[in-house]
Amino acid sequence: MKSKHIIDLEDLSANELTEIIKLANEIKERPSDYAEACKGKILATLFYEPSTRTQMSFKTAMLRLGGSVIGFDNPQNSSVSKGESLKDTITVVGGYTDIIAIRHPLEGTAKAASMYSDAPVINAGDGGHLHPTQTLTDVVTLYNEKGSLDGMTIGLCGDLKNGRTVHSLIKTMSHFRNNRFVLISTPELAVPQYIKDVMNASDCTYLEVPSLIEAMPMLDVLYMTRIQRERFASEEEYEKEKGVFVLDKEKLLSAKRDLKILHPLPRVDEITVEVDDDERAKYFIQTVYGMYARMALIKTMLGNTDKTPTARIFDTHNVQCSNPRCITKTEKYLPKIFREVGGDMLICKYCENRTLI
Amino acid sequence: MKSKHIIDLEDLSANELTEIIKLANEIKERPSDYAEACKGKILATLFYEPSTRTQMSFKTAMLRLGGSVIGFDNPQNSSVSKGESLKDTITVVGGYTDIIAIRHPLEGTAKAASMYSDAPVINAGDGGHLHPTQTLTDVVTLYNEKGSLDGMTIGLCGDLKNGRTVHSLIKTMSHFRNNRFVLISTPELAVPQYIKDVMNASDCTYLEVPSLIEAMPMLDVLYMTRIQRERFASEEEYEKEKGVFVLDKEKLLSAKRDLKILHPLPRVDEITVEVDDDERAKYFIQTVYGMYARMALIKTMLGNTDKTPTARIFDTHNVQCSNPRCITKTEKYLPKIFREVGGDMLICKYCENRTLI
Amino acid sequence: MKSKHIIDLEDLSANELTEIIKLANEIKERPSDYAEACKGKILATLFYEPSTRTQMSFKTAMLRLGGSVIGFDNPQNSSVSKGESLKDTITVVGGYTDIIAIRHPLEGTAKAASMYSDAPVINAGDGGHLHPTQTLTDVVTLYNEKGSLDGMTIGLCGDLKNGRTVHSLIKTMSHFRNNRFVLISTPELAVPQYIKDVMNASDCTYLEVPSLIEAMPMLDVLYMTRIQRERFASEEEYEKEKGVFVLDKEKLLSAKRDLKILHPLPRVDEITVEVDDDERAKYFIQTVYGMYARMALIKTMLGNTDKTPTARIFDTHNVQCSNPRCITKTEKYLPKIFREVGGDMLICKYCENRTLI
Repeated sequence: MKSKHIIDLEDLSANELTEIIKLANEIKERPSDYAEACKGKILATLFYEPSTRTQMSFKTAMLRLGGSVIGFDNPQNSSVSKGESLKDTITVVGGYTDIIAIRHPLEGTAKAASMYSDAPVINAGDGGHLHPTQTLTDVVTLYNEKGSLDGMTIGLCGDLKNGRTVHSLIKTMSHFRNNRFVLISTPELAVPQYIKDVMNASDCTYLEVPSLIEAMPMLDVLYMTRIQRERFASEEEYEKEKGVFVLDKEKLLSAKRDLKILHPLPRVDEITVEVDDDERAKYFIQTVYGMYARMALIKTMLGNTDKTPTARIFDTHNVQCSNPRCITKTEKYLPKIFREVGGDMLICKYCENRTLI
Repeated sequence: MKSKHIIDLEDLSANELTEIIKLANEIKERPSDYAEACKGKILATLFYEPSTRTQMSFKTAMLRLGGSVIGFDNPQNSSVSKGESLKDTITVVGGYTDIIAIRHPLEGTAKAASMYSDAPVINAGDGGHLHPTQTLTDVVTLYNEKGSLDGMTIGLCGDLKNGRTVHSLIKTMSHFRNNRFVLISTPELAVPQYIKDVMNASDCTYLEVPSLIEAMPMLDVLYMTRIQRERFASEEEYEKEKGVFVLDKEKLLSAKRDLKILHPLPRVDEITVEVDDDERAKYFIQTVYGMYARMALIKTMLGNTDKTPTARIFDTHNVQCSNPRCITKTEKYLPKIFREVGGDMLICKYCENRTLI
Repeated sequence: MKSKHIIDLEDLSANELTEIIKLANEIKERPSDYAEACKGKILATLFYEPSTRTQMSFKTAMLRLGGSVIGFDNPQNSSVSKGESLKDTITVVGGYTDIIAIRHPLEGTAKAASMYSDAPVINAGDGGHLHPTQTLTDVVTLYNEKGSLDGMTIGLCGDLKNGRTVHSLIKTMSHFRNNRFVLISTPELAVPQYIKDVMNASDCTYLEVPSLIEAMPMLDVLYMTRIQRERFASEEEYEKEKGVFVLDKEKLLSAKRDLKILHPLPRVDEITVEVDDDERAKYFIQTVYGMYARMALIKTMLGNTDKTPTARIFDTHNVQCSNPRCITKTEKYLPKIFREVGGDMLICKYCENRTLI
């Protein structure tokens, strides 16, 4: 692997991604061959906000590789978050353990952590920014359920404006050939322009559709997400529209026989319980693929023999990131690092927010 | 084992129960023979209410079998309980792990969980309803300390009306031969009629006695439990009566030399600290037997080769259970399943509460 | 080892301490030789107050020895602390596990716990009283970084009055030859007389210095600790003095080239972040030594073949300890045990507080 840390799924080349997907498959087929693959290794799960399922998936993955796990699951229980900088915590934990999975409510935290950790860091979610192991879960599921990652018509339904898992899945699937995205949402919650740019620049196409029922017959894959009540333009809008984006048995009548329904979970009511018994529902088995995906990722990262110590990084600009949810807002010692994108625009290397100079 | 899950100790036949008791003994005698018996297996401890000792007992049991453990210990720390149904949580965790121990404040939760779990489920306490591994602990202790489960005079002292461990122990010991129960309580806190029915229908007898001191000389076993202050008929009653059900050194003067004193723990003040030094006090070693009991149970359940996937269950009646603490009150999607008991009475298959049609 | 439990580092003879330091080194050099040294053994980490780093250090130590860990990290999540005596909890956990590390806000708790535990007990911090594994960490660090524990000039900076790690380090280093302590503090926060007595009675000398800058050129080791704002005599005093005890790059200009900077962590602002990049900063690697120190301690304690059961201890005096933070204040059943120190003075054997008869 080129990159020591996985902050964004884009840290993996298409080739590396394919290797990990294949390894996940291989582990799923022959788990006992991997039961001691990480024996003696320790994973730290540093969860600065609770996310029980993600944490259980990481823990199970490490345990099924024969490794062990330490960590914390809640800042309230943890003295770590009190009066100690992220830098100090990560430096210490990176000295204790072999690999770190970090989740934090602020954007850019995993990137910041990776700058101080001798152990490889996996981003287990940094606010609304990135959650690469969810996308890895999604593509491992698609590869297993469809046999390939090319040539699919993939419906994405729900809040496509704010959904980080949706954006990440589109970016990743755009690297493969000939996929078509069907974007199912309200106009207010459509995918942002930069995601459309990604699709336009790729081998893939997309179309926008205002309702689930309209999209259904053409889909090979349906990726459901939730629209939060407060995301609708108004309460009247919500009452009028809410059913349009709920998957139920009736809407499934016009679906293909080999449709695969995915969901990042937890679901609330955007998929009715009766759909669970439909054999096209894959959102529960998807979590099992997620476990294999994380096993493959951890094993690959621990197999990386590059032991170069973390180099000190220096300010690139004397500018503050303008994103109030960026980790640089609370961790003041972090170097101010930006990427220039023409004119007077900078992109923060932590949270990827755009800041005007 | 006939039953895949252990919701009630009655899920085990007398023969299966005896096998597990013997296995617990065997593990106790030769622990190193079992140190890798569950290697590579994962136990999930899903504790929707804190019960540190029960959780530590399950964890230790699994670790001493060479397995490992994931889980949570408190709904407040856990995102699982927020906005996610029990069904979804259990389905996901059942996909990650090999066996689940669940504790929940609502009655019938373990039964509900077992309906959605491919992994075997152990009830680690569902509200005031059942706690089968405590009873298993009790009978393993009795078998070890007395050499048999027949022909004993067993005193049960405290709140016999509400104490689920007392009811369960009486039911289980009634399957063995020639036991005599001495029920030591206030009239208001006597055992319910259906428990008396169980004893009457069995090979066993019982008598009711109003004070510990009166019962003491006849007992082979004394099973102490606590009476909560608010359970007494009045504050005056409490002040007058409280000492009557407290075990102290003085009351032990008339006890048999080989009496065995048990308590499910934690104790508050119903056994004075000085009794701890009496060699008839077995309530601490009882927790060690509990660890071996859970090891035997887990090993037996994981050895079950029946891998039939969980079948969908349908409503038997169109009726709501009337018990406000039943899991069906909060998890609305659960099928309404009842057992008919003559006339117009239904018994809820989750919480065993009686509901009039 | 003479002592079964480690409540105070003084429970180890100088010889035993040296053996553990050497073992820590040996484990650091050849970790794989020790990867299964405690296989099948279970450590309980009973943390009645959160201390995530100390707990992670203990857990990692046990896992890297091939053992496993159970425990709790917060009284709020734990039913153990509710309505159950320390005695009962320890007796039960001592029956489940092979070794216990306990942390508690009240002084003397580890001593009290050791009286009821068949498993060896390690004090992981009892209020402001003792924290022996921190001192063990410090001396393992010094031994590794300096090659010996003799003949050093050791600066100790910060709150020397209240800092338990400072007192313990002075006591331990006073057992070695020819060390010189440079005590850097305000007059109000100077080391207490009894610590001066320890140095005076030893082979070591000390001097008191009012500022870091003055002490710097003579130091081989600088042990930094924090002065809490509220410890200063007044707010004006704080504003005037605070910079005097902060280590920054400038103050390091006059330091020796082979100075070693230690800190028990977490640091707040008493060492500026820029110092982290100075190669004399050893406070992060110190935590790694701490892990090896705990591995050596755990392995040594588990190797102790003395299985004498815990003997009952009786009151030595009919007196209450006068320390309001002593564990005997809340756990009333604890025997009242004191050491007489001439005249009418008693020293509590739990918290070491002096009480007048």
